Amino acid sequence: MVEYPPAPPLSVSRWFNSEPLDLAGLYGRPVFLHTFQMLCPGCVQHAVPQSLKVAEAFAQTDLAVIGLHTVFEHHHAMGPESLAVYLHENRIRYPVGVDAHAEGDPIPLTMRSYALQGTPTLMLIDRAGKLRLKHFGLVDDLRLGAQIASLLAEPAR
Amino acid sequence: MVEYPPAPPLSVSRWFNSEPLDLAGLYGRPVFLHTFQMLCPGCVQHAVPQSLKVAEAFAQTDLAVIGLHTVFEHHHAMGPESLAVYLHENRIRYPVGVDAHAEGDPIPLTMRSYALQGTPTLMLIDRAGKLRLKHFGLVDDLRLGAQIASLLAEPAR
Amino acid sequence: MVEYPPAPPLSVSRWFNSEPLDLAGLYGRPVFLHTFQMLCPGCVQHAVPQSLKVAEAFAQTDLAVIGLHTVFEHHHAMGPESLAVYLHENRIRYPVGVDAHAEGDPIPLTMRSYALQGTPTLMLIDRAGKLRLKHFGLVDDLRLGAQIASLLAEPAR
Amino acid sequence: MVEYPPAPPLSVSRWFNSEPLDLAGLYGRPVFLHTFQMLCPGCVQHAVPQSLKVAEAFAQTDLAVIGLHTVFEHHHAMGPESLAVYLHENRIRYPVGVDAHAEGDPIPLTMRSYALQGTPTLMLIDRAGKLRLKHFGLVDDLRLGAQIASLLAEPAR
Repeated sequence: MVEYPPAPPLSVSRWFNSEPLDLAGLYGRPVFLHTFQMLCPGCVQHAVPQSLKVAEAFAQTDLAVIGLHTVFEHHHAMGPESLAVYLHENRIRYPVGVDAHAEGDPIPLTMRSYALQGTPTLMLIDRAGKLRLKHFGLVDDLRLGAQIASLLAEPAR
Repeated sequence: MVEYPPAPPLSVSRWFNSEPLDLAGLYGRPVFLHTFQMLCPGCVQHAVPQSLKVAEAFAQTDLAVIGLHTVFEHHHAMGPESLAVYLHENRIRYPVGVDAHAEGDPIPLTMRSYALQGTPTLMLIDRAGKLRLKHFGLVDDLRLGAQIASLLAEPAR
Repeated sequence: MVEYPPAPPLSVSRWFNSEPLDLAGLYGRPVFLHTFQMLCPGCVQHAVPQSLKVAEAFAQTDLAVIGLHTVFEHHHAMGPESLAVYLHENRIRYPVGVDAHAEGDPIPLTMRSYALQGTPTLMLIDRAGKLRLKHFGLVDDLRLGAQIASLLAEPAR
Repeated sequence: MVEYPPAPPLSVSRWFNSEPLDLAGLYGRPVFLHTFQMLCPGCVQHAVPQSLKVAEAFAQTDLAVIGLHTVFEHHHAMGPESLAVYLHENRIRYPVGVDAHAEGDPIPLTMRSYALQGTPTLMLIDRAGKLRLKHFGLVDDLRLGAQIASLLAEPAR
């Protein structure tokens, strides 16, 4: 039987569209966590529009949809004030956190603890807080819909 | 609580890619049943390619994928010999039945018993043989993937 | 300087949506000639819808849009009566010819004289009757629009 | 006979990928001028990728492809340093100008002189410097390809 690891906690320096939240507080709900950078073409053209579709398609369920802005390059152009504009222009209303930086490290903390390769990366976390999917790059809609519904169908523990 | 009706039996005059089968024999498995006509543009351009994607994406599950050729117009151009070519050219390897006709009625029997409006129509049947979805027209991949996975996640009875 | 060959004449056994026509009669106009088979997936899903877009986008010009049904396989399933249904269902209103067969040869005559590899193949013929493009497979919309407009812009001779 | 107006001059505070240029210096060549904002979703998802396709498809012609960053909102998030990152990440190598601002006016100068409604807006300028197209919103690839090729085919004067 496959054992999945617990999803590491998020290190967030600022939240948009939400009070501060953490994964522990979401225990019991499946979580769709997508990491992006606001100037990464694959994020902007594909992953973020898909995340907006996910938020809408599963609005009647207890899925938690969360964005994480993991800036690891061009930091001066993707600060929180710029992100606020990006969220506004793209009508993103679900919680989005800014991945926190340790002093002197261009790679942010959550990106390090999840060992992400780049953006966009999609994570799915189950009701028990286990990391069930970590996918770098684009995901097909049909398979993504199925994976989310599978997590939703699992019993709370 | 919503009660779903039992899916009516299929009336099929000829099967391709399969020995004769019926829904009773599939009891316990969810069924993806897509009705089409081989010369209906919406079927050929969208619904059949999507059904092929479904068959591939859920190949490792116990989902039964079935096509039903419900010819209600231009019968001379969509006979079984033509359908055989269509299935070959589109590499459709899952079971496809030809909806049977009662003498003198252009609308075939299964199309009548399911009260279908036209093609393409997609049906989802659950493990207990209940008709859970009947959708005329196109369906979004993300939502379709979720609906199928939800049925797969239901316990066998 | 590149010399283009004259486009060979069409050998057509039956015309739909038109009186019999030939390329000589279209001399002076550029011609968009697309060959297809009504049960070829690449034709049905991409090339024919694109040809319908071309017919609409260039309706105000003197471009001649012509389809040619070059059946080289599964002849029994793609006869003229079936083609008539296909044209009706897809609302194809521009002239479509049936490529003629010599007795005993499965490859039709125009397909032979143009040395086509398969379907879909797109041909562009200029105002002087020269074959300027013969492309097997799919063509990008942006480049296709440009190629057609270039031919339209050439002076009549 | 339709008379087209001369294209107004560009007011640019900074050029990327080019020495300073002006439309007068491009007289004799057709110009594809697309205005955008780096955080406008329709620009980023559709218009800019299309402009990159145009630059590639017409690279062997004398078409001049130019971008103009017409920032009329959220100025703090779309400054030249941020634009530099955007151009780098999207591999935009053709000349892009920053539309200049008069003090106290949020709408930039070229946007005013062309009376643009918003972004994205596409302009086509002919070899004689006349403004032939000004289109706010998305443009179909097939028709765009045709319009550009028509301008290319016009004789230099």
